[in-house]
This record gives sequence, C-alpha cells and structure tokens, in this order.
Amino acid sequence: MLSLEGMRVLDLTQHLSGPYCTMILGDLGADVIKIEKHDGDDQRKLGPFVNGESSPFMAINRNKKSVTLNLKSGEGKRIFLDLAKSADVVVENFRPGIVKSLGIDYESVKRVNEGILYCSISGYGQTGPASQKGGFDIMAQGMTGLMDMNSEEGERPSKIPISLHDIGAGLMSLYSILSAYIFKLKTGAGQHIDVSLVESGLALTVAEAAAYFVNGTVPKVSGTRNHLSAPYQAYRAKDGYLIVGAGNQKLWEIFCKEVIERPDWIADSRFGKVSDRIGHADDLEELIEAVLTQHEIGYWLAKMDKAGVPGGPINSYDAALRDPHMLAREMVVEVEHPKAGNVKTLGIPAKMSVTPGQIRFPAPTLGQHTDEILNTILGLQQGEIDSLRLARTI
Amino acid sequence: MLSLEGMRVLDLTQHLSGPYCTMILGDLGADVIKIEKHDGDDQRKLGPFVNGESSPFMAINRNKKSVTLNLKSGEGKRIFLDLAKSADVVVENFRPGIVKSLGIDYESVKRVNEGILYCSISGYGQTGPASQKGGFDIMAQGMTGLMDMNSEEGERPSKIPISLHDIGAGLMSLYSILSAYIFKLKTGAGQHIDVSLVESGLALTVAEAAAYFVNGTVPKVSGTRNHLSAPYQAYRAKDGYLIVGAGNQKLWEIFCKEVIERPDWIADSRFGKVSDRIGHADDLEELIEAVLTQHEIGYWLAKMDKAGVPGGPINSYDAALRDPHMLAREMVVEVEHPKAGNVKTLGIPAKMSVTPGQIRFPAPTLGQHTDEILNTILGLQQGEIDSLRLARTI
Repeated sequence: MLSLEGMRVLDLTQHLSGPYCTMILGDLGADVIKIEKHDGDDQRKLGPFVNGESSPFMAINRNKKSVTLNLKSGEGKRIFLDLAKSADVVVENFRPGIVKSLGIDYESVKRVNEGILYCSISGYGQTGPASQKGGFDIMAQGMTGLMDMNSEEGERPSKIPISLHDIGAGLMSLYSILSAYIFKLKTGAGQHIDVSLVESGLALTVAEAAAYFVNGTVPKVSGTRNHLSAPYQAYRAKDGYLIVGAGNQKLWEIFCKEVIERPDWIADSRFGKVSDRIGHADDLEELIEAVLTQHEIGYWLAKMDKAGVPGGPINSYDAALRDPHMLAREMVVEVEHPKAGNVKTLGIPAKMSVTPGQIRFPAPTLGQHTDEILNTILGLQQGEIDSLRLARTI
Repeated sequence: MLSLEGMRVLDLTQHLSGPYCTMILGDLGADVIKIEKHDGDDQRKLGPFVNGESSPFMAINRNKKSVTLNLKSGEGKRIFLDLAKSADVVVENFRPGIVKSLGIDYESVKRVNEGILYCSISGYGQTGPASQKGGFDIMAQGMTGLMDMNSEEGERPSKIPISLHDIGAGLMSLYSILSAYIFKLKTGAGQHIDVSLVESGLALTVAEAAAYFVNGTVPKVSGTRNHLSAPYQAYRAKDGYLIVGAGNQKLWEIFCKEVIERPDWIADSRFGKVSDRIGHADDLEELIEAVLTQHEIGYWLAKMDKAGVPGGPINSYDAALRDPHMLAREMVVEVEHPKAGNVKTLGIPAKMSVTPGQIRFPAPTLGQHTDEILNTILGLQQGEIDSLRLARTI
C-alpha cells in the first residue's frame, strides 16, 4: 500500500527543485505525469550519461511518466487543461509570469478545476522586489547568507557543496502540497502555493536567526567547532580526523576517564563547566590531539562506542555510500532502466511501516508515456494521437 | 483557516530535529502538545537568552503548548497514554530503545489507539548496525560524506555551517507524517515512521549520488564553481565578490555582449561551447575578473539585471535578514513572548493562498499549559492536578 495512491500530479517542472518534490510524491504513490517540451527537461542534457540517458535526470525522475507537449500551441494548452480537469496537483517552476503568458496559470486551471492545488516554485517567489529575476541555487545561496557563512574571511566564497536551496524548496513545496491536500480532502478547497528558493534556504537557518536577532552574531565558517559545546568537533588522530561529541557534562567526564584516560582533566579549572571548555577550546584541542594522535581512528571510535561517548568517522562520500549501516538501511538500491540498464540510486530515507515509499518504476525516457496518457486519461484514439504528433503538438 | 486544524500531536522531542518538524505542524494548524521532563527540553539551556528564555528554543517551539510530565513514573506514563488516546500523531527523538523501556513505544501506544501515527527520529534509525549509537548532527555530517565534501584536502574538516541533518530529518519526518495522515484519513490505519539523521542527510545528495554511481566521482569542496556550467560561480569585482550565472549558451552570449562588452569572446575557441568553458574555467575567471574588478558589485548587478543575465550578491547573514526582498516576503516577523517580550523570528517560507501557515502564539514557558491540558483533555480537576504536582508526576 502507498499513502498517496489516487493523487494525480501534473508536473511541469524541470531542473532540480520541482523534480525532487514530485519524485517524493511519486515514491509515496502519487500518479505523477511529467509534461516536457519537445527537447525535454533541461536536466536531461546534464551528464554523466549512461547509454545516452542523463544520470542526474534518472536519479530525480523515477516513479514519473513522461508526456511531451508543446504548451506554446493552442492545442497543447487545451490538452494540458483537459488533463488538469482530473488532476489534484499542478507543480511548476517557470520564472514568474511565464505560466500566465501561456494561459496555464493557477487562475486558468482553477476555471476548469476549482479544487486544484497549484504549486509554483521560483528563485525569489511570485511577489516582492526581486520576484522577476531568474534565480538558481547558487544565487539563492548567495542571497540567504549561506554561501558567506560557509566561506573563509577574505577568501573566494565557497558554496555549500550540494544544491541546498533547490532541495530545500522541493521539500517545502512537498509538505505544503501535502497539507493543502489534507485540507482539500476535508473541504474540497483548492489553493495556490508560492515557494521560493531563497525563503526555503533561509528557513533552514532557524537557530542562526535566533542568535542573530538577540545579539547580532553573524555566523561564519566555524570549521567543525560548535559554539555551544566542547569537546564537540573534529580532532586529529594518527591517520586522519574523527569526530568527538561529548556534548554534556556527564559525557565529558566519561570521555576523560574511559576514552582519553586523563581523569585529572575533570578537575582542571580551564575545563570545569561547558562554558569553560568552550572558552579554552584551543587548549582543549591541543591536549586532546596530543593523546588522539597516538592511535588510529578505528581504535578511538571503538573506545568511544564502548564508553557510550558519541563519536564517528568523517567519511568521504564514497565511503558513506559503502558504509555497512547505510547498506543495511537500503540507502543504495538498483533500478532497471529500459535504456540505461541497471542503475544504482539512493533508496527511500524515511521508513514507513504500513505505506513504505517505493521505487515502482525507473525515470521515463522522453515522451515514453505520451500515447498511454492521452489514451487512458483523455480517451484519444491512435489516429488523433498521430495527428497531434504530426502537428508537433506532442 | 489552517490546513491541519483538528490534528493533535504529542511531541516528546527535544533539541532540533523533532522540534523543527512539530513547529511546522503547528504553523499549519495542528494542536501540538510538547511533553517535557521537569527541567525541560535540553534546548532551553542554550543561549543566547532573553530575560532567561533561550532564543534558539523560542525560535523552534512556537505554536506549541508545554506540559511537564515525568515519564519515568507509572502515573506519568499513564497520563501520557491517556493523552495518546485522543492524539493523531506522536513524535519522539530519544535514542532507540528508550521509549520501549519507558513503555511508551509504538506498540504500547497502539494498544490504546490503533490509528496512531508514531514517528521516531534518531541519529542512525531504529535498525542496522549503528542504530544503538548516539548521533548528533555533526556525526551525521561526518558519516554521510557531507563534511568531507565541504572540506579542503589535508585541512581540518569543516562542517556545513547549519545543522543540516537535524533540519533534514525534521523535514523528512514532516512529509512522512503528512502522507501517513492522508492514508489515515482514508483508511483509519496508523503506522510507525522511522527517520534518521544520516539517511535524511544522504537523501539531500541525490545529484551527487547519481554522478558517483556512474563514474565514481567523489565530490570535494568546489569553491563556487559548478561542474556542469561556466561562467557560473563567484567572481571578484572592485569591492568584493558577486555571482554570475550565465548558465546556458544564450545567456553566455548576452553576458559577453551586454554585460562584459567583449563580444569577441563568443568566437574564442576556448569558450565556444559550455564544455569548452568548463575546460578553460581558469582562463575564463582571469579574463572576466580583469573586467569585473574595474567596477563595483552594484554596477555589475544592475547591468546583469538589465540584460536578464542571472546574477546576485553574496550577502553576509545580517545583510540577508535586512534584504528588502526578504522583508517584503515577510521572512522576518515579531512575536510577543510573555517573558522575553517582542522577539524577532523567521517568518513562514511557503505561501499558501487559502490556508497560510501562521504564528499563532509564541513558544511556551516550561509547563505553561500543564493544568490546561490535563483539565481540558483528561478532565482532571484542580485538586487532582495539585496532587500530581506534589508527587512530582507533573
């Protein structure tokens, strides 16, 4: 069983933010119909490729069906609005204004389907002074302060290495759509949802905002140190770095006694309370590393595990994807793709006991389901479909 | 109107991951009852403080009511299970095994409420070889490869400057709860949801995983460069850095002609196609910066806006929170707190037209609603409540 069975989604999105949202809707059971222009989602052009299929595209478009449609033609628009009559959700991530000029905006869809949930994702949102600008993940990281936070003073700024604001916008769209769907199930009401990359990114900084609004602290790159706890950072061992998270007084004392075997540090006035340890984090680092560098990472992690002191390795990304725990949790799975063959991909992160998310089918090839959808949903016959193809409507 | 009106949530969580999830449930209208131990959520001990109230606590616990309850006492457990009878959702983020030892795990709650949705958030999940370890955000960043990705080779590793895996786990719990609630509305079925920090973090790396599984690329700190596009990074201007995102051929040509005024670069064989520009990103950077450093950031941003080439500033965090666009989008709001007074906090990122999220009331003081909840939900009279308080059950 799947939790969102029976929800039909028309997906006009491309790149990353929208497709990430609709992928999870599909994982949870929604019937996602991806509507693509004739040359497809721009993401299809990004490598690396497997037998001509884009691997980033495949990774975020599983569980969707693909229909090609020329939304700039009157006939294409008519087909879209016909499909929208039986849909629950439309998701789009065009630049603000485009869907209106195409005649497929919320108001237009609402005219044929009063209860539609229509989610618009954009760089800066549908309103406000910056709304008309084009915005990708990197500009959103720049605008929200996240890139500056991740950068060394005076150095060339360094973005967060994943497309955090795209993914964040996808997740915020997702929960907004689900909560609006709950309201729709109860009342029948539709609505418009307006999500932006910049607001989604900013909303991730809730603790940083709290501190800033009180004392004006502007966060900068902190290495691995925590401003509120110590020892709670990466320390050097003989063969590299590891993480120690002795986050409270009890763990600190266990760490001194059972891990580092220096119970005398507990009485050291520099390290008495957590505020003392934060104030003397440099001294603490020096002393701890003098001991940790005598043995290898594995030795210390085993010792911390035994003592119950939180700690862990700093995996490279390939080590993360080979980690026995990640494999036991089925975070790496294989999907059979009609053109690309067996492709590995990330699994389903949230484990639901009754309605677990499922990878039901692989990402579609471009227009793979055009005929099927036009026939099953709109009842078009093969002759009509052939004519639409001849006219370049589909 | 609020989309989640009528949903009752018992919130056993503390720190960041769980409270972030239940805060958004509250923003969307759920009735969130935060159950705290006698000394409260550990987050209450973190500064900065305003009139003795923790600002990070206040920032992620708005729209919740607080009840103190000693879950280690038989009477406390009985009260919890009584409250659970009328709840839709329980969320907890204890270390795996704790709720079972307390007798308040999914199976125990299910016995009194068959349709309960019970979400457990933990460092590593409820199963798998690492499940019994304690895990905080920093260890999850270490395990998933995100910290290594964000670090310079050979340097001390540098974590991503926000608690990304905590927030990620909060968001994944949120969408799982909402989709399970949709299933519950249709079928009455409850279920258990198992979310971990490490899987939530890994699930954000979907594009990176796609590349790794195809060609073994292990992402490392990339500064601001994009592996798939150029010019698409931070460049130096006269007074600091700015972002240029001329992400496709058309934008590149407009950038050359109208922004940088070097139309001859279009024909330069080093910069012909996007793959050429990526291959000569160093040359490109040198040439572009030779021009950009002649004027200030504001000059170039205006010129890019006029030409329609995506670009933007790299705001420090304080500049982000003062940005006129962010203010126009109501991303900074004020909440009146009974003890702390007027406190600024982040607004609601997703804009819903019919059921917009609302900050209905501020974060509770510890145990502020104990009497109210025990009276209104369980029908206890003041004498009984006083006795429970005397016995340190509440």
